[in-house]
Amino acid sequence: MSAFTDIATRTYNHGWRLDPIVRSLLDTDFYKLLMLQLIWERHPEIDVTFSLINRSRSVRLADVVAEEELRAQLDHARTLAFTNRELVWLAGNTFYGETQMFKPGFIAWLRDFRLPPYELSRREGQYELTFSGPWTHTTMWEIPALAIINELRTRAVLRGEGRFSLDVLYARAKAKLWEKVERLRALDGLLISDFGTRRRHSFLWQRWCVEALKEGLGSAMIGSSNVLIAMESDLEAIGTNAHELPMVAAALAPDDEALRQAPYRVLDEWRSAYGGNLLIVLPDAFGTHAFLKDAPDWVADWTGFRPDSAPPIPAGEEIIAWWASKGRDPREKLLVFSDGMDVASIEETHRRFAGRVRTSFGWGTNLTNDFKGCLPGGGSALDPISLVCKVTQADGRPAVKLSDNPEKATGDAGEIARYLRVFGRSGLVSTPVTV
Amino acid sequence: MSAFTDIATRTYNHGWRLDPIVRSLLDTDFYKLLMLQLIWERHPEIDVTFSLINRSRSVRLADVVAEEELRAQLDHARTLAFTNRELVWLAGNTFYGETQMFKPGFIAWLRDFRLPPYELSRREGQYELTFSGPWTHTTMWEIPALAIINELRTRAVLRGEGRFSLDVLYARAKAKLWEKVERLRALDGLLISDFGTRRRHSFLWQRWCVEALKEGLGSAMIGSSNVLIAMESDLEAIGTNAHELPMVAAALAPDDEALRQAPYRVLDEWRSAYGGNLLIVLPDAFGTHAFLKDAPDWVADWTGFRPDSAPPIPAGEEIIAWWASKGRDPREKLLVFSDGMDVASIEETHRRFAGRVRTSFGWGTNLTNDFKGCLPGGGSALDPISLVCKVTQADGRPAVKLSDNPEKATGDAGEIARYLRVFGRSGLVSTPVTV
Repeated sequence: MSAFTDIATRTYNHGWRLDPIVRSLLDTDFYKLLMLQLIWERHPEIDVTFSLINRSRSVRLADVVAEEELRAQLDHARTLAFTNRELVWLAGNTFYGETQMFKPGFIAWLRDFRLPPYELSRREGQYELTFSGPWTHTTMWEIPALAIINELRTRAVLRGEGRFSLDVLYARAKAKLWEKVERLRALDGLLISDFGTRRRHSFLWQRWCVEALKEGLGSAMIGSSNVLIAMESDLEAIGTNAHELPMVAAALAPDDEALRQAPYRVLDEWRSAYGGNLLIVLPDAFGTHAFLKDAPDWVADWTGFRPDSAPPIPAGEEIIAWWASKGRDPREKLLVFSDGMDVASIEETHRRFAGRVRTSFGWGTNLTNDFKGCLPGGGSALDPISLVCKVTQADGRPAVKLSDNPEKATGDAGEIARYLRVFGRSGLVSTPVTV
Repeated sequence: MSAFTDIATRTYNHGWRLDPIVRSLLDTDFYKLLMLQLIWERHPEIDVTFSLINRSRSVRLADVVAEEELRAQLDHARTLAFTNRELVWLAGNTFYGETQMFKPGFIAWLRDFRLPPYELSRREGQYELTFSGPWTHTTMWEIPALAIINELRTRAVLRGEGRFSLDVLYARAKAKLWEKVERLRALDGLLISDFGTRRRHSFLWQRWCVEALKEGLGSAMIGSSNVLIAMESDLEAIGTNAHELPMVAAALAPDDEALRQAPYRVLDEWRSAYGGNLLIVLPDAFGTHAFLKDAPDWVADWTGFRPDSAPPIPAGEEIIAWWASKGRDPREKLLVFSDGMDVASIEETHRRFAGRVRTSFGWGTNLTNDFKGCLPGGGSALDPISLVCKVTQADGRPAVKLSDNPEKATGDAGEIARYLRVFGRSGLVSTPVTV
């Protein structure tokens, strides 16, 4: 067969300066685009700094991933523009049942969008990677930056493995994922979507996982948070909003009272921009307990909640009890579970809430980056790390996230202490962060 | 990427009348060629019938494999001729350290070789497939006929499986094989070769397995019995002789004494044609015990034995004791184990004989067709079956194989009784035949 090698393709591939990890600006999470439209419309003047934070300190990323390769990938991402086809799809596709989710003016603005500059240095075996500038631009770095670093780490670990070692590695990972699919298939009424872009093993692997879920779970697989994969695989693009909205609002609050109100101000803005199934509350930026205690009544009218840092069952129970206290029927509400879920916790959570509340699951790292036990030589070099890219400043003021798990808190220590004073510590439970 | 599909290749593939299973006359076992040269030189006048025998009666092959497809594959195999490149390689390559293993006259004769006609009918859910005519031609059907039927069964079982089911099936099988490779890697001084052509899952899978062993076992992987794969993967072609030689000699023996001597006459012919490492005795056609009891002294000068139907450890011990009784040092001798071996029996046998005799392993069905537990839907539809293609007549006289395991005996019942009288029952042990 060697005579029939596709010479043009081979030659074209020879010409690549590098093998790019991010090849499209749509290779990001859908909620970034929803938030971006809001930021573009309401807050075009805010400057925000995003910073890379590796919570798995024992993995010395700067020793594993070559700086030259990292710069090459980041630089390549900065050359990307939305293509005409991508913009036509964003403008014309239906998202969450809505047409024209993205306004013509926003689509036009996206046409000239490019990722802004980055700052990269090394310190104690870690990379210090920051993105500073208009929030309308720095926000778009979060997902590609994380995907690039995670995939560069994968490549570094696998460099030098033999062709059959690699074949076996992926064979094991595929077999492993399929065991999960077979277990999930047994759950009546399950709804699940891929949330695994940011911490994926690689782009190609994420795509394989999504296609496998599509075939294996049928209609239980409702979509992907990855816009490019959703477009190419004809799946729903899934996602609503993230912690950066309340974090920026909180950072800019002039006093403690404004700080306490910041999460609700953000939701108020959101509901004026989006409706229906996009009205999902992310309650844990500064502690779910505090959020619920002071929440205005209209928050109970929203479609659902996405608990993202408390153990799923207590978190769900707390929100259900809150809905009931507000006179709402939880069976008409939705809980989206997305924090470090895997098959066992999906099974347990699904069974616990069946018939009591609608549920769906955003399956992330344990879907797209579970290679434990798959390396032919053994070892944990492919285990996912807890890498995030968070808002650290807004207009020069420090930004903080508390979350329901103090292990996940980010920000300046003095500011964290102030936030804890304002929001309280009630309901915060420390749990080891693995993914 | 769809714009870059290789249109020429796609178009070429559209034009296939079928997807041929056997695409080269070298896609056969090496010993068939060694035996063929002997038959061509010494016995061009003998007519021999080979017949398909499915010892796994519960698998109704004629219900699983469509007759039309079977005929199409057999017909396609009959269109094949040795290519010039293949003949140049056979003539010029070194086999077992010898140049010009195949004589120029034989190579010239091969140039016009084609597989002869077949007869196919159905009976009680099984195929009756026979090849009658000159031994020089019918002998060459054994391996392709078996490979074709086994792969057609694979295709029938897998038809209708989804693309990801198939991907997972092979992922599981790859992971399974690699576990075996990792266990075998721990055995010091192991020598192993692929003997899995006849009962392989498919050609492509056999090739994957061989390449995986090559990478995973390094120099412990000494070759393949498959001539085409040996040529393409630059491995040693492995094999010596098979039961058809003593079976034909026995069938043609004019009386009981000539029958008793038939196995030794065959070895005498073999040693006049081949030397060195090709002097491997296959002792079990009519029982190893009987063979050793009456064997002439010169048989102890041969390089080794290939016990093929007795449990490996007792068989090895019996042969070692026999060498010692003949005053030979077993540490200079070779035992080749090839009967239904898998990792556990390879480990056990290797350890048992380490330092006492040289050993090597011919790994067959459990290498190239172990899909137990791999079907995404479960079930045993891919489990290998005990299918053979044996000599049933020579010049019109019935042919018989006893073997050390009466479950493997083939032939007419009255003739089996006569052979048992001539050779005795001593040492025969009934063991279930699984592969």
